[in-house]
Amino acid sequence: MKRLAILGSTGSIGTQALEVVESHPDLFEIEILTAHSNAETLIAQAIKFKPNAVVITDVSKYELVKKALESTTIKVFGGEEALIEVVRWDTVDMVLGAIVGFAGLKSIYAAVDAGKTIALANKETLVVAGDLVMKRAAETGARIIPVDSEHSAIFQCLVGEYIENVEKVILTASGGPFRGKKPNFLVNVKASHALQHPNWNMGAKITIDSATLMNKGLEMIEAKWLFGLKNEQIDVIVHQQSAIHSFVQFIDGSLKAQVGIPDMKLPIQYAIAYPRRIRNSFKRFDFKDFGQLTFEEPDYKTFRNLALAKEAMNIGGNAPCVLNAANEITVQAFLQNKVDFLEMSDIIEKTMAKVVPIVSPTMEDYEQSDKEARLYAQELVKKSPLATH
Amino acid sequence: MKRLAILGSTGSIGTQALEVVESHPDLFEIEILTAHSNAETLIAQAIKFKPNAVVITDVSKYELVKKALESTTIKVFGGEEALIEVVRWDTVDMVLGAIVGFAGLKSIYAAVDAGKTIALANKETLVVAGDLVMKRAAETGARIIPVDSEHSAIFQCLVGEYIENVEKVILTASGGPFRGKKPNFLVNVKASHALQHPNWNMGAKITIDSATLMNKGLEMIEAKWLFGLKNEQIDVIVHQQSAIHSFVQFIDGSLKAQVGIPDMKLPIQYAIAYPRRIRNSFKRFDFKDFGQLTFEEPDYKTFRNLALAKEAMNIGGNAPCVLNAANEITVQAFLQNKVDFLEMSDIIEKTMAKVVPIVSPTMEDYEQSDKEARLYAQELVKKSPLATH
Repeated sequence: MKRLAILGSTGSIGTQALEVVESHPDLFEIEILTAHSNAETLIAQAIKFKPNAVVITDVSKYELVKKALESTTIKVFGGEEALIEVVRWDTVDMVLGAIVGFAGLKSIYAAVDAGKTIALANKETLVVAGDLVMKRAAETGARIIPVDSEHSAIFQCLVGEYIENVEKVILTASGGPFRGKKPNFLVNVKASHALQHPNWNMGAKITIDSATLMNKGLEMIEAKWLFGLKNEQIDVIVHQQSAIHSFVQFIDGSLKAQVGIPDMKLPIQYAIAYPRRIRNSFKRFDFKDFGQLTFEEPDYKTFRNLALAKEAMNIGGNAPCVLNAANEITVQAFLQNKVDFLEMSDIIEKTMAKVVPIVSPTMEDYEQSDKEARLYAQELVKKSPLATH
Repeated sequence: MKRLAILGSTGSIGTQALEVVESHPDLFEIEILTAHSNAETLIAQAIKFKPNAVVITDVSKYELVKKALESTTIKVFGGEEALIEVVRWDTVDMVLGAIVGFAGLKSIYAAVDAGKTIALANKETLVVAGDLVMKRAAETGARIIPVDSEHSAIFQCLVGEYIENVEKVILTASGGPFRGKKPNFLVNVKASHALQHPNWNMGAKITIDSATLMNKGLEMIEAKWLFGLKNEQIDVIVHQQSAIHSFVQFIDGSLKAQVGIPDMKLPIQYAIAYPRRIRNSFKRFDFKDFGQLTFEEPDYKTFRNLALAKEAMNIGGNAPCVLNAANEITVQAFLQNKVDFLEMSDIIEKTMAKVVPIVSPTMEDYEQSDKEARLYAQELVKKSPLATH
């Protein structure tokens, strides 16, 4: 029986993880559920899964949750600090890090510090502070199992192989809803349009990141740290059908790929069940639905976020942190129609140029760079013709 | 240093294996080379690689080889029996079984009996006598590493995985030079046409088997024994580009695939180097050459050899042995323009119906069934309008 702490249980990954848990009551037990502000869903989940504790990080919702669960034995905590404490509990066997954005970093770092096994869905943990996180994991024996479908694919291809035998990894990108489009088209797209991902059903932030290809850029940086690769060992190929979730190329020229229908439940299940594979009744891959798989080079010129992410990876230090912070601000602004699609890249690029580079940042440096980048990106958002409109 | 016995060193697989060996003198040493009748090549190989011994199974060539190597310390043996003896030598670390056809069975069985690690390129060993061979391997601790690209792909996908977690394997078939053709076309094709394989550069027998899809049928049976699968766990999909060499589908719905350019040197190197992967300078897979990968169901009605092989697998016992014997005769006849393309299936089907079924054959039974099937198939060949012409 594996006792799970699900950080961000009310989000897209969290709720799907709970579906997997519900299907396998013999394998999983919920120890902790946490949410930021979606108190209603958290309460419903708590009543259903009877965790030892819940955390609501938005303290203004604490009383609401506390009251709703007062007739139960479930412990209720509020605030960010509680999150960082509960992941360290001895009763937690595995932490599923499914909080979106920079906000997920501190709690994952605490779990790493406590030597936990972590199913990691939060990209920013490794994008922002991959060096610190992986160094600490090596010291504490914490193990990180990726949840992202691409990294799960690579992880699955590496089972039984030596990392020294990897020549490169090739992340597949669907290309998003605007694959093949040019700037003159992109300048006019709206958030509602970008939210229609052709293959994957995901949260809003990651869906916009898929449309800009920033998602793939963040994944390159994530892969670098997760698998201990050099920058030049990480490639991206556009594969519209999202059937092949990534490739690993070995030093003998052989490649392995992981394949499946585009459904996050599969990598979620793989990560929380690892090292087991669990029999399930998920829809099976059918070649009739995938009679043709295509591959093409990504368009770095049009989808500048991908080029910026690659640049940040190559610069290193606090550059990915700044990139990520600026991106979070611009995605939020784009979702609120305050900047247009192309301005997102402008703002990220300007923010990267503005924030002072740090070669070997501490966690405090990362927090500082994150703050600075957000403030500056916000200023730039305000100057957008759309925002001032 | 791994000391290799290469059985069938003058054939397509054997010569490519020697190229790999030549590139890695630090890893491999040639202990034994064997050939059937190509004395000239065997002599040249022996002078170059300085094995401990060579075997020429066609005894009429023995004196020729003996004389050519008399100034060296290389031991020279003649005849089938010598083959069966030398593979058992303590100085042999690995046996590469690259003899084509039923003729390869006895020597591989001797290597299995001696508990050797075997890189297996000879399909017939498992097609004909998979039950006996694998049972004996389990007793002696012999390990079989596949050389066939499809089985190598499956083997590579299974590294680090549990065989109990396999839901099915999906062998990819290029479809051969006559993919999409119908009987009215096939009745007129000649051997020279069938020998033009679109993707793979292989020996004549296997190239014809690729054109009839018998090759894929034999591979299904081979996979069954090699990986201990049930018949219903083995599927075939036509994948024209031969980039994906096969798939494994696991019980959680995840699939893994091995990918690479169609070049036998890669699986040959993998098998003889296993469990290592060796860095090499083989041409790398390039998505520009494989921008589109297609998949379609095989046409069992037109390519009846595939259906017959599947039927033989399902019947079991000596049925695959009979199928294989009849196929060897018909391929030989087709290469000599003594039967047409479609008659090959007719003859195999009739031979399968003629030879008395044996549920649990001994090795002697297999030899007997093989003989009977060959005789009967030969008779049928003689009755072909082409043969009597």
